[in-house]
Amino acid sequence: MVTLSEITARFGGHCVGENAGAVQVSGFRPLESAGPEDLSFLTHPKYRDQLLITRAAAVILAPEALPDCPVPAIVTSNPYLYFARVANGLFAAPRPAAGIHPSAVVESPIPASASIGPNVWIGAHVEIGEEAVIHANVSIYPGCRLGARVLVHSGVVIGSDGFGFAKDEEGAWIKIPQTGRVIIGDDVEIGANTTIDRGALEDTVIEAGVKLDNQIQVAHNVKIGAHTAMAGCVGIAGSAKIGRRCTVGGGSIILGHLILADDVHISAGTLVGKSITTPGTYTGTVPFLEHGDWRKNFARLRHLEAMTDKIRALETRLAELEKKT
Amino acid sequence: MVTLSEITARFGGHCVGENAGAVQVSGFRPLESAGPEDLSFLTHPKYRDQLLITRAAAVILAPEALPDCPVPAIVTSNPYLYFARVANGLFAAPRPAAGIHPSAVVESPIPASASIGPNVWIGAHVEIGEEAVIHANVSIYPGCRLGARVLVHSGVVIGSDGFGFAKDEEGAWIKIPQTGRVIIGDDVEIGANTTIDRGALEDTVIEAGVKLDNQIQVAHNVKIGAHTAMAGCVGIAGSAKIGRRCTVGGGSIILGHLILADDVHISAGTLVGKSITTPGTYTGTVPFLEHGDWRKNFARLRHLEAMTDKIRALETRLAELEKKT
Amino acid sequence: MVTLSEITARFGGHCVGENAGAVQVSGFRPLESAGPEDLSFLTHPKYRDQLLITRAAAVILAPEALPDCPVPAIVTSNPYLYFARVANGLFAAPRPAAGIHPSAVVESPIPASASIGPNVWIGAHVEIGEEAVIHANVSIYPGCRLGARVLVHSGVVIGSDGFGFAKDEEGAWIKIPQTGRVIIGDDVEIGANTTIDRGALEDTVIEAGVKLDNQIQVAHNVKIGAHTAMAGCVGIAGSAKIGRRCTVGGGSIILGHLILADDVHISAGTLVGKSITTPGTYTGTVPFLEHGDWRKNFARLRHLEAMTDKIRALETRLAELEKKT
Repeated sequence: MVTLSEITARFGGHCVGENAGAVQVSGFRPLESAGPEDLSFLTHPKYRDQLLITRAAAVILAPEALPDCPVPAIVTSNPYLYFARVANGLFAAPRPAAGIHPSAVVESPIPASASIGPNVWIGAHVEIGEEAVIHANVSIYPGCRLGARVLVHSGVVIGSDGFGFAKDEEGAWIKIPQTGRVIIGDDVEIGANTTIDRGALEDTVIEAGVKLDNQIQVAHNVKIGAHTAMAGCVGIAGSAKIGRRCTVGGGSIILGHLILADDVHISAGTLVGKSITTPGTYTGTVPFLEHGDWRKNFARLRHLEAMTDKIRALETRLAELEKKT
Repeated sequence: MVTLSEITARFGGHCVGENAGAVQVSGFRPLESAGPEDLSFLTHPKYRDQLLITRAAAVILAPEALPDCPVPAIVTSNPYLYFARVANGLFAAPRPAAGIHPSAVVESPIPASASIGPNVWIGAHVEIGEEAVIHANVSIYPGCRLGARVLVHSGVVIGSDGFGFAKDEEGAWIKIPQTGRVIIGDDVEIGANTTIDRGALEDTVIEAGVKLDNQIQVAHNVKIGAHTAMAGCVGIAGSAKIGRRCTVGGGSIILGHLILADDVHISAGTLVGKSITTPGTYTGTVPFLEHGDWRKNFARLRHLEAMTDKIRALETRLAELEKKT
Repeated sequence: MVTLSEITARFGGHCVGENAGAVQVSGFRPLESAGPEDLSFLTHPKYRDQLLITRAAAVILAPEALPDCPVPAIVTSNPYLYFARVANGLFAAPRPAAGIHPSAVVESPIPASASIGPNVWIGAHVEIGEEAVIHANVSIYPGCRLGARVLVHSGVVIGSDGFGFAKDEEGAWIKIPQTGRVIIGDDVEIGANTTIDRGALEDTVIEAGVKLDNQIQVAHNVKIGAHTAMAGCVGIAGSAKIGRRCTVGGGSIILGHLILADDVHISAGTLVGKSITTPGTYTGTVPFLEHGDWRKNFARLRHLEAMTDKIRALETRLAELEKKT
């Protein structure tokens, strides 16, 4: 249990409500399920109805929402960030104990502060930063480098061969040896079953603070700039260079050898087929329809060129007629 | 070897054909490759040509197909379900032996009837149901619960952190601790390399009888209703609530915080960008074309708004002209 | 270090430049970063600017590019294939040592020339070919067969159950036992975290020389013809039959029971919803737009049928008017 005044003393903001500073909380719950020992938070006006009837002990919110709050509050300009800091500082699960699980196969020196989980494989000549956490069943191929406080979830593969082949005279594929590495900066988080291939000749590079969700595929020679975040199931083809502070929505595909500027945001499900040089949000998805409507509408997609031709013909004929009349 | 009459005695239906009940079969094969010891089945009229020339010992089929069957038959109203029951009851491979493989790292008590494969990791405070089967190289994080007869294929990750971050003043991401669990009901099957994240504050919930194919990503706080089935490579973003008896085709993406009603069917490759409140089938894919045709047609997609404007202008001019004439 | 004349003696081509045969190189680097000990290569005229200022010791190139080359050269008709052969023959990392890592769980006999990595599981009755390399944390279910020189990257799952269920009268799913195998030919390479399901009644078949990138999902009963190559995140549904020498771009989905002819090429991100009988390149993606433009344009996609109707009405009215005038 911690009091609101202990929280504001450490994280800023101020307590509002009768005797608010003395209110005790034991953790976070969402507005609708919070009870008398829970701290909650309001991050968007659309949840106002939930605020009005919340039974939380207290709520973190922005000043505008204060009049709607039936319980004590902590007022701050950015409730979501405040929630993240308090949750992280006071209520996070303890990180896995430092040390190497006896079932792990580790062929490189590891700092004493790092935590290496069960059945992990770390190949030779790998560098792992201080306080890194590598969960169970991760595979890290030889020669890769991971920074400090990197968090790698189960099933991740780092440093597998990039996909490079040349076709010979008979149509068979000749493998191009993949001799680069994977270089991962500090504070990177990598979600479950994500794969990051080693570079072909140069390195694949993930800069500091990047956050990758589950089941992302990062091909050889890709570079991802600092503090970029990607949601699940994104695929990035070889040699794409992605800027800093970008976000990429789930299931998007970024083709190879493209460049995305800093601060580019890609909507979920978008295929990025050419470089983007201007910051902004980009989208390329189709709206879904009830299946019968879809069949009628989307059949037309095969005939857009013909539709354009028909409109042009109509314009010509109409102009002709207008001249006459 | 088992006779048709033994099969119908146990599973219903009736034998048709001279001496049909005494016919012996040793397993299933498709119509076109079945031989004189094989049982086969016809599930759709489009395979009638294969039925006409099948060399199977006998065929499971619906009454309508009986006249086309050159060999003994078992007649039933739902041949595919009947096939599933017989295959399951008589010809399934033995399930893996109960017990914990010595290479597995198991930090929670496991029922004696469960089977835990090689190199599995099961963290602390996990509950595993009776007769559950966990194949090799699965990772289950602390605190998760799996029901009875759950079948988990290799490479699956259950309970990894959800993808939750708040942006700080400098543009860096502050992790939001993921303190919920994953709760999985009875009779759920989870395909190879599928990932299911733990909830942020609440739990991620997969209800009884759900079937998930390979490489599906289930984000934090998602709820999947009972008996829903999803094909490979589906991605479900955070806090989506999916109803009961839904089906989701391969490669579809369901965005976060959406609600799908019971009995909603999503076609393969569809991006579901808003909630669906009415049962039915929904589709949002584009037809492919030969590449040259695609280039001509799909370039028009960038100009649909302009086409609409042109049509509107034509309508106005034509109305003007019609008034005059 | 190796001299250019040693290279051309072994791999063909000829040296050009003063004393070129005596030039020594220690490995490959791209044109823009190559230094005085590096061999480089030019595979496309678009990199001519990099060639003009390269500091490489020598460059592999086609005869046409020779005038632009400021350093010694090896001239050959197919520089990329030549590069692949030299890199493979002289500069590849040594393959992992033959033998079974003590942490692997191997329930089948393995040829002495094969390399089985840490924490791998190989079930009973599996056949592994000569000189196969199986990296860490791979799972191979009972009964599967892998050819000679197969290379399997970490996290791959081979032989998990296909996704087959019949619906019973109450809407629950009855599992169809998956009793087929996975058969993989010689010289196949399988990328990290790719999954290949066993067949239901027949086998799933990957022919010789096929190259699969990371995170590809191959469903039950699929057949992939020799020398076909697929990029990351492709999903192939059950019983699809894919020809020889096909290529499939990243993130594409191929629906079930389809047939793709030999020499079919599918662009990245395409949903293949029907069979393709003619060799060629096929595409079905939408161009992305800045988000505001996308909203205006793509909203029209729901109204294509109405647009067609409007154009038809305009044509009728105009014809009417033209008759009058």
